[in-house]
Amino acid sequence: MKQAKVSNNVIRRLPRYLRKLDELKTAGVDRISSGELGRQMGLTSSQIRQDFSCFGEFGQQGYGYNVTALRGEIASILGTNRHFSAVLVGVGNIGRALIENFCFEQYGFHIVSAYDVRPELIGTDIGGINIHDISELPRAFERGPVDVAVLSVPKIMANRAARELVDLGVRSIWNFTNVELDVGGDVIVENIHFSDSLLALGYYLSESMDAKAAAEARKDK
Amino acid sequence: MKQAKVSNNVIRRLPRYLRKLDELKTAGVDRISSGELGRQMGLTSSQIRQDFSCFGEFGQQGYGYNVTALRGEIASILGTNRHFSAVLVGVGNIGRALIENFCFEQYGFHIVSAYDVRPELIGTDIGGINIHDISELPRAFERGPVDVAVLSVPKIMANRAARELVDLGVRSIWNFTNVELDVGGDVIVENIHFSDSLLALGYYLSESMDAKAAAEARKDK
Repeated sequence: MKQAKVSNNVIRRLPRYLRKLDELKTAGVDRISSGELGRQMGLTSSQIRQDFSCFGEFGQQGYGYNVTALRGEIASILGTNRHFSAVLVGVGNIGRALIENFCFEQYGFHIVSAYDVRPELIGTDIGGINIHDISELPRAFERGPVDVAVLSVPKIMANRAARELVDLGVRSIWNFTNVELDVGGDVIVENIHFSDSLLALGYYLSESMDAKAAAEARKDK
Repeated sequence: MKQAKVSNNVIRRLPRYLRKLDELKTAGVDRISSGELGRQMGLTSSQIRQDFSCFGEFGQQGYGYNVTALRGEIASILGTNRHFSAVLVGVGNIGRALIENFCFEQYGFHIVSAYDVRPELIGTDIGGINIHDISELPRAFERGPVDVAVLSVPKIMANRAARELVDLGVRSIWNFTNVELDVGGDVIVENIHFSDSLLALGYYLSESMDAKAAAEARKDK
């Protein structure tokens, strides 16, 4: 039973819970209290109970959570059992890395086909996925709805490719282009902004270096 | 003037502000009100004033923000003028994509050298960066402190490589391995978890598909 609107912060924590529960399963842990789960994840137990309460009651008061059951609940909330269909557009280094190394199936996504513009790639097969010319993209949509387009084209082509995908009726875009896509509000866009991540790292680095420098200065006094 | 502790959510918004202000500069906009900036970014003006107030007063009541000045303030808060030194460990598809396509310098980071284990790569030059054998990693630290290690090795090698980097004294790790690194608290770890991002996308997709299905069902009644 999902509630109407769950905060983005809660949703962003769900994959972390899933990862942690997989770890616990692997480690042979059957039950865990919200307190212990919180300790291992750097969250408070009330935070955890609050997060889960957005989706119903998973734990038993005093008995903690059944790791396997909770993992199943969270996986299904995240739609890993839905079999989303995906196309990948742009088979450069990132696109290739995703096709070759990233386990889409594990998360409920299935890459149907991949597209690029470079003649030397067209017709080749990478990690079991056939690479088509971008001009054949509409064909993918004739076979049925496309849930996700993994967009890994060069910056300069990002918005043009995104608009074509939206016109074709794609439901969502997983955006690796580092470009803020200018598409309508009906399309879900999930960004992987390397630059934002590195800039945040730069902030935390600056903060810790300034703190160390200040501590040194106090010592020298 | 930074304040003691700024919330993670605010820090995560700073790169978005920076991107938007770059757009505005390119578009020739000199001044912008918090209201207009908010409209363009999907934030409230009070939210924006609150975010900036964490770092001092940037705007003039009633005059809005000077785009160039504000951009400069945020860039310096994010440390883009600091010249952080970085090494890249793992020159697979992701590592190669970062070296070849990602403009580290623009964000204040400078890749000093890159490392891999594959003999065919050692001694080669990718995007102006020389690839060394991983056994030479300690040398990078002899030349001075290494602010960031970009970690793009296969999952199975992730924690071993991370621990070696921490033992060598790296200040932070930009983690592309999709593995939750098990390193001490002194080291800053910034994760790019593709899986978390795709799982969040799966959640939003499921939500919108359920909503559409429910709407259809109501129509059929």
